[in-house]
Amino acid sequence: MASDLIDAVGASPSSAIARLVKPRSVAVIGASADPAKTSGRPVSYLTRHGFGGAIYPVNPKVDTIGGIRCYPDIGSLPEVPDVGIVLLGAERAQHAVRELAARGTGAAIVLASGYTETGAEGARRQAELLEAAGSMRLLGPNTIGLVNLTDSIPLSASGALEMEHFPAGSIGVVSQSGGILGALLSRAAARGIGLSKLVSTSNEADLDLADFVDFLADDEATRVIALYVESVRDPARFRAAALKAAAAGKPVVAFKIGRSEAGARAAVSHTGAMAGADRMYDALFRQVGVIRAQTFADLIDIPAALAAGRVLRGRRVAVLTSTGGAGTLVSDSLGVSGFETPPPDEATAARLRALQNGDHAALDRNPIDVTLAGLQPDLLRAAIRTLLDSPGYDAVAVIVGSSGLAMPDLMADAIRDCLPGSDKPVLAYVSPHAPHVAAVLNQRGVPAFSAPESCAAAFGAMLAAARLRGAPAPVAAPAVAAAGIDDLPAGSLDEAQAKALFARFGLPSVRETVVGDGAQAEAAARALGGRVVLKILSSEITHKSDIGGVAVGVAPQDVAARLAAMRAEVAGHTGREPDRFLVQEMVGGGVEMILGLHRDALGTAVLLGMGGVTAELFQDTTMRLLPPGGALSQEEAAGMARELKTWPLLDGYRGRPKADVQALADAIVAFSRMAAALGERLVEAEINPVFVLPAGQGVRAADGVALIA
Amino acid sequence: MASDLIDAVGASPSSAIARLVKPRSVAVIGASADPAKTSGRPVSYLTRHGFGGAIYPVNPKVDTIGGIRCYPDIGSLPEVPDVGIVLLGAERAQHAVRELAARGTGAAIVLASGYTETGAEGARRQAELLEAAGSMRLLGPNTIGLVNLTDSIPLSASGALEMEHFPAGSIGVVSQSGGILGALLSRAAARGIGLSKLVSTSNEADLDLADFVDFLADDEATRVIALYVESVRDPARFRAAALKAAAAGKPVVAFKIGRSEAGARAAVSHTGAMAGADRMYDALFRQVGVIRAQTFADLIDIPAALAAGRVLRGRRVAVLTSTGGAGTLVSDSLGVSGFETPPPDEATAARLRALQNGDHAALDRNPIDVTLAGLQPDLLRAAIRTLLDSPGYDAVAVIVGSSGLAMPDLMADAIRDCLPGSDKPVLAYVSPHAPHVAAVLNQRGVPAFSAPESCAAAFGAMLAAARLRGAPAPVAAPAVAAAGIDDLPAGSLDEAQAKALFARFGLPSVRETVVGDGAQAEAAARALGGRVVLKILSSEITHKSDIGGVAVGVAPQDVAARLAAMRAEVAGHTGREPDRFLVQEMVGGGVEMILGLHRDALGTAVLLGMGGVTAELFQDTTMRLLPPGGALSQEEAAGMARELKTWPLLDGYRGRPKADVQALADAIVAFSRMAAALGERLVEAEINPVFVLPAGQGVRAADGVALIA
Repeated sequence: MASDLIDAVGASPSSAIARLVKPRSVAVIGASADPAKTSGRPVSYLTRHGFGGAIYPVNPKVDTIGGIRCYPDIGSLPEVPDVGIVLLGAERAQHAVRELAARGTGAAIVLASGYTETGAEGARRQAELLEAAGSMRLLGPNTIGLVNLTDSIPLSASGALEMEHFPAGSIGVVSQSGGILGALLSRAAARGIGLSKLVSTSNEADLDLADFVDFLADDEATRVIALYVESVRDPARFRAAALKAAAAGKPVVAFKIGRSEAGARAAVSHTGAMAGADRMYDALFRQVGVIRAQTFADLIDIPAALAAGRVLRGRRVAVLTSTGGAGTLVSDSLGVSGFETPPPDEATAARLRALQNGDHAALDRNPIDVTLAGLQPDLLRAAIRTLLDSPGYDAVAVIVGSSGLAMPDLMADAIRDCLPGSDKPVLAYVSPHAPHVAAVLNQRGVPAFSAPESCAAAFGAMLAAARLRGAPAPVAAPAVAAAGIDDLPAGSLDEAQAKALFARFGLPSVRETVVGDGAQAEAAARALGGRVVLKILSSEITHKSDIGGVAVGVAPQDVAARLAAMRAEVAGHTGREPDRFLVQEMVGGGVEMILGLHRDALGTAVLLGMGGVTAELFQDTTMRLLPPGGALSQEEAAGMARELKTWPLLDGYRGRPKADVQALADAIVAFSRMAAALGERLVEAEINPVFVLPAGQGVRAADGVALIA
Repeated sequence: MASDLIDAVGASPSSAIARLVKPRSVAVIGASADPAKTSGRPVSYLTRHGFGGAIYPVNPKVDTIGGIRCYPDIGSLPEVPDVGIVLLGAERAQHAVRELAARGTGAAIVLASGYTETGAEGARRQAELLEAAGSMRLLGPNTIGLVNLTDSIPLSASGALEMEHFPAGSIGVVSQSGGILGALLSRAAARGIGLSKLVSTSNEADLDLADFVDFLADDEATRVIALYVESVRDPARFRAAALKAAAAGKPVVAFKIGRSEAGARAAVSHTGAMAGADRMYDALFRQVGVIRAQTFADLIDIPAALAAGRVLRGRRVAVLTSTGGAGTLVSDSLGVSGFETPPPDEATAARLRALQNGDHAALDRNPIDVTLAGLQPDLLRAAIRTLLDSPGYDAVAVIVGSSGLAMPDLMADAIRDCLPGSDKPVLAYVSPHAPHVAAVLNQRGVPAFSAPESCAAAFGAMLAAARLRGAPAPVAAPAVAAAGIDDLPAGSLDEAQAKALFARFGLPSVRETVVGDGAQAEAAARALGGRVVLKILSSEITHKSDIGGVAVGVAPQDVAARLAAMRAEVAGHTGREPDRFLVQEMVGGGVEMILGLHRDALGTAVLLGMGGVTAELFQDTTMRLLPPGGALSQEEAAGMARELKTWPLLDGYRGRPKADVQALADAIVAFSRMAAALGERLVEAEINPVFVLPAGQGVRAADGVALIA
């Protein structure tokens, strides 16, 4: 084992984490001799769950703990430990960390609370702790530790480790909450779902979510990575780690809390109001191939399904049941999630009929009801194989009714026997309360669920994972040069200036002329030909129409009079006569959209939304984060448009002309290049509306704002 | 017990069902001596679960079953049984039913399959079975039977009854699937959730869902009714039974499958395409106060929460936790569902601080973190009482972490002790895998969940139940006289005829004139004043605009020429020159909506939708079923408009004028009166669009179709 470890440490790019996760020796600072106390647990768990390396309890008050020699202080340890678990309170933890670091310990796990989570004073304390660690790596503070199930090494005080046994498997879990680590560990174990590594990063003074995603992407025992996310603190490193996992063929599944903040956030700009922190995470996860778990149960269920390593190529599911009601229930749930449950084709139905004497009616339908299969493993095996062989099905869901409860092993073996002949997914749904049956199935590599909605979520995630596998690895867009923008004035640009800025990046606007009086306006209108839009031009007033500053469809001969009226009305509202106006061409026949910028701790995103109040009520928008230093690709930009629920309006809905989606994608890319090039200098930018004209006719920005720092 | 029964039978309007549910004697026809066989189960379960009445197995081949005397045939039974459980196959079951009926048996439970569920031949067989039953009531066929938990009487072959014990309680369950009955029974028992009666109605040859809802509405042991619905076969009786339960203060919760058919249904009219069978159920449930369970788990979770009988008056929830992560998880789920988790007010925070020494920071927040409370029942009790007393909270969610696992009874008792002092709801969320803890809590009357989403669903249902409790009982609208419509021609009405029909019921239309040529058209336009709409008038062509049959905004002087051009264009499309046209006033400034009719097996519904393609893409519509023989009330009609996601467009969104919602409600009522008065004669009707003008200006039907049988 020791030589294995050296290999692992040597081979891994994250050798410090490998040493933390698979230590040869563990010092437990502040260990208590009472295993009922939290500080008594780590030594007890290490012993009980069979840790093969050296355990060094440190406690000046006792000589031994559970028969293991205890040391009075860190200095007297007989060797440098790979890991030190620090169970002391916040004030004393810092000294222990400093001593562990001084001795050359690989990493310390600090359980104490009272750091950043408590406010400014705690943040100061956390900074000191990090300083004390020096080059030693630090997990926590405020962590419950980690559990390496692959190698039976519990480095944790989680009460969930009171269990006798938890199955090792291929799901690596990183949780930003310590309490949730215990919940996931106990829930997975009860279901017979095997985990590989389980880490609580908590305050992330040093090691964070991204570090462990990166580690698990390399970890041989891990096939799927599950994340409980409160906040991604370093988006760039998280992005890199997630892409690394994707490149290694390891799906990443994330459940994120903080979802309900979205509605509560106050935001000044219109784009801001439509975006929101949680939707930024949606964008980030989508862009790096992270599958988002919608419910907390999904965070176990989806990885369990993906860990089976089978490939879902389509939406056609055979539901094989020996109990009518539950088969229909699962079919219905699948249908709600967009899956199909077609009846078997004639050849498949004939094979099924040949398996069973008696009433055959139910074999021409789906759910496929083989009442006796619940009692006859051979029949069950043959029926599953028939369905897996059928070209009409992409997957099989086996319903386990009460008849399966009497002999779960025989039944689970029968299902497992069918797996090698096909790579199509096979799931089980256990209808009665029978957790032991689900556990037996999971242990055989057959993902088993007790909620019909979980079957649908699992298949949905499998489809997403298959798409990710088939997709070309995302490449960072070429960096955008920031040259040629040094002449930009700071502050809020007026509409004409904003559009001129957009034009530098290739974003076309409506034709327009800046005028100062009625005569100029009339001349400009006649030059444009036809009716025009007349607006005040101001860098200060953003809601022009609220104060009478916009007139639409003005005939050239009326422009001068309209301008005079507008001047008076605006002055009535603002107390100041506007002295500049825009005369713009009217654009018709296009689809009105919004293109905006949203920025928060996760990064800078481009937002695309359908225009108009109705779409606004439905919040029909989508976002993409800019990759570090780059812009969006043409492909990503086109994908944004297709994600809108109102996409049909661009795609020839009900006989409308198809919109110039190519030009829209060009505009999105141009907008993203502008955002990338200006970086922090671009505080706000929005084009509202941008008209997307029929195919071949391009797009036109008809109004816009930009705020330059 | 016998006199109790007689009282129950005598008092109940559904005495035959009372006799079925609580029999003094049960004959089991076709009972097997092998308890492992399905036909061996009922006698075995009756004995094992302590049925106090007489058991009469009927089987000519054996003398005793489980020590009980066996009879060779029904004729030789020593007394008339209250219930006969028929375990024979379909062919022989019929004879047994006839014999049971002949002896005066109260009801037969027929388990055999092979009836309507298998097709035409089976349907014939079921009709014969019903005929054989005569005046005897029949449960099934194809049922798994029923379980009366209140009185420990299992009349079922469900394998779920293999359990040693299932707690009796106050949730009455009716399932249209036999397999699901077993799933619900075993799942509820495992969670410590007590049921009162559990019935599988299955094929419903006689007794159906409505019968048992009606029965449970009267049943003293039942406080909440849970339904697993495949299809409501008799909507009028279901409606009456649900309203009776509501009047008795018993919430009804339904999980309905068949949800995914909605999208698949082909429908001819536009209204039809937007409606769909499942949304009709939404309408039915909403109108009779049935709370719809969105997931299968909700079908147990929500009744469990409602059975506690506590009252949720608002959305402010205190989350009390001894484990940080899970508290945040539950708060987040509550937030996603529209609940608030505000911090405690100053007085409450002070009381909390007084309970606990040490670090108080976490007591000013919500989740309220009392780390030690998990270990100290007194502290837990005091904290819950403080939160229940707080005027700032409407409910308390207690998070149970791993510290609670060691002493579930003490902790559950502590929570239960707080219940009498307040009627606010208290729920528990159990974070680690600990089903025994959840069971202990449920048994103490504290609804306990292991999914954060379940807590949100439970609170949501409690709010809905509180609203229903506060609402005036729905009264059937006065019947609508069908007089004065005998002169209606059959067939498809043209637009002018359709509007004339709408006008008879008080639905105003745009002003318009039917014309035959250009001169008449011009005269009509000048009489209307201003620009007009010109359309062809035809009872055959419904998609007028597709063939050039609609022109909008035509000036009076251009109408004649436009009519000539339209005549030619339509002739080019249809091969026939139109000879009649409509000249209509233009309507501006209103909100475009759709009012339509939808009819299926559940009944006739009025559909209201927002107009325009964007709203159409979001399927922003709502429906109300007409009550039997009546029309919609003004209140229901107004409620429909407020349910639309685009309701803000009618309610002054972004500075728009408020629409005349009163007139819209009048129009909906008028439309429903028309539908009620015409009944089956009105095959189709749709007003698209109807313009809802600014408040005080009314509504105008601008186009319409009607098909009269």
